[in-house]
Amino acid sequence: MNKDVRLLEDESIDDLQLKNLFLIQKKSGFRFGVDAVLLSNFANIKNKHRVIDLCSGTGIVPFLLYGKYNPKEVIGIEIQDDMVEMAKRSSKYNELEKIVKFERGDLKDISFLNKLGKFDALTVNPPYKLNNSGIINPDDKLAIARHEILCTLEDVIKASRKLLKDNGRMYIVHRPERLIDIFELMRKYKIEPKRVQMIQPNIKKAPNIVLIEGQRDGGAYLKWESPLYIYNEDGSYTKELNKIYGREV
Amino acid sequence: MNKDVRLLEDESIDDLQLKNLFLIQKKSGFRFGVDAVLLSNFANIKNKHRVIDLCSGTGIVPFLLYGKYNPKEVIGIEIQDDMVEMAKRSSKYNELEKIVKFERGDLKDISFLNKLGKFDALTVNPPYKLNNSGIINPDDKLAIARHEILCTLEDVIKASRKLLKDNGRMYIVHRPERLIDIFELMRKYKIEPKRVQMIQPNIKKAPNIVLIEGQRDGGAYLKWESPLYIYNEDGSYTKELNKIYGREV
Repeated sequence: MNKDVRLLEDESIDDLQLKNLFLIQKKSGFRFGVDAVLLSNFANIKNKHRVIDLCSGTGIVPFLLYGKYNPKEVIGIEIQDDMVEMAKRSSKYNELEKIVKFERGDLKDISFLNKLGKFDALTVNPPYKLNNSGIINPDDKLAIARHEILCTLEDVIKASRKLLKDNGRMYIVHRPERLIDIFELMRKYKIEPKRVQMIQPNIKKAPNIVLIEGQRDGGAYLKWESPLYIYNEDGSYTKELNKIYGREV
Repeated sequence: MNKDVRLLEDESIDDLQLKNLFLIQKKSGFRFGVDAVLLSNFANIKNKHRVIDLCSGTGIVPFLLYGKYNPKEVIGIEIQDDMVEMAKRSSKYNELEKIVKFERGDLKDISFLNKLGKFDALTVNPPYKLNNSGIINPDDKLAIARHEILCTLEDVIKASRKLLKDNGRMYIVHRPERLIDIFELMRKYKIEPKRVQMIQPNIKKAPNIVLIEGQRDGGAYLKWESPLYIYNEDGSYTKELNKIYGREV
């Protein structure tokens, strides 16, 4: 670890419990959750892959992908300056500046995407909510992370088409109620949905998270995985979830 | 019961264990399965409704809908003459000719659809498999029930748009691997998917049946139900499935 990296006031540095990796986050603000962990686990990344993570925020997904799959390179892109600066400090702290990189930019900006090149795999944990409430403060970082203020689902999928190599894979985490829109937009931009997994709080509750794998110009065949349940009926974490978190039970 | 109704050789008459209803089926051939029972249970039919069932086969779904919801009228349409004739004998046996009716016709035939009028609700258990195997005997009734030989998913959804009243509801049972196509075609014909339920063999296995409710010209909001599991881990039927079959446990 590079101990020269300095934390700002209101930041913490958290042990990811994975290959001695750490992540700088705001103490109050957007802190990573189960979605990022599930997305990283769902992705299928090879050692030789060049990977990109959109809407990267704190950079949690690139660090988890690095820790799990040891890919050649992972680039996280993010539109908010201060988030990129914080993610770069995490990379420096972990002494991974040559492998886990961050770039500030807008995924709606074609010249920015062109500069990034092409990728074998892409992950994205985009804002989930439609920007239609009318009560959102556009300076609010939590609102930007959660609502489609600075980019829509269509912007994300359009950029993904541009960034993926032929037959490259896209992995997205979202909410089940948006699945029709996701399928529709993926087909519109010729990223064929190939695999879906639903996440349920427990066996009795409806799914509240969905993971989708798509393939650029892939053939039409959709595989449904068995669902993942977060909690047992007694409220403890399931064996499967503990395994994803790398916890022994 | 009308005891004058005669059975052909190779037919049986089976007690549906519901309101003293019976169904004539071929002893060898297409016999109704769990899909028809799940579809009838998933549908939400009111007493005042006029209901249509497409690809009606033996007529199982109309009889189950009648038994569960007591609607004003249920019409089953089916392209195969001998199936329609058999379903009509079931209706006569149950003395329901004025309520549970069957019509022979092709759902691709607009003038046939026009004659039927408009419906509050529609159910369909269509052929599941794409007609692309090349080894299918087109005279094989089982093949017609299972493969898209005489009608495609698009034919079914296009006819559904035509047959439904404004805001009328469509209920379809299908295979999860076709869900992207179903969503895409429903949106194409402006029947918005509103509710989805996955059916899993048990909590550990991937879903193998999906139920979808759509609304003609409905607004976009998709609700995911919690899944239904057929078997417990010990191989017995779940409480939920027994409840659908009207069995006390």
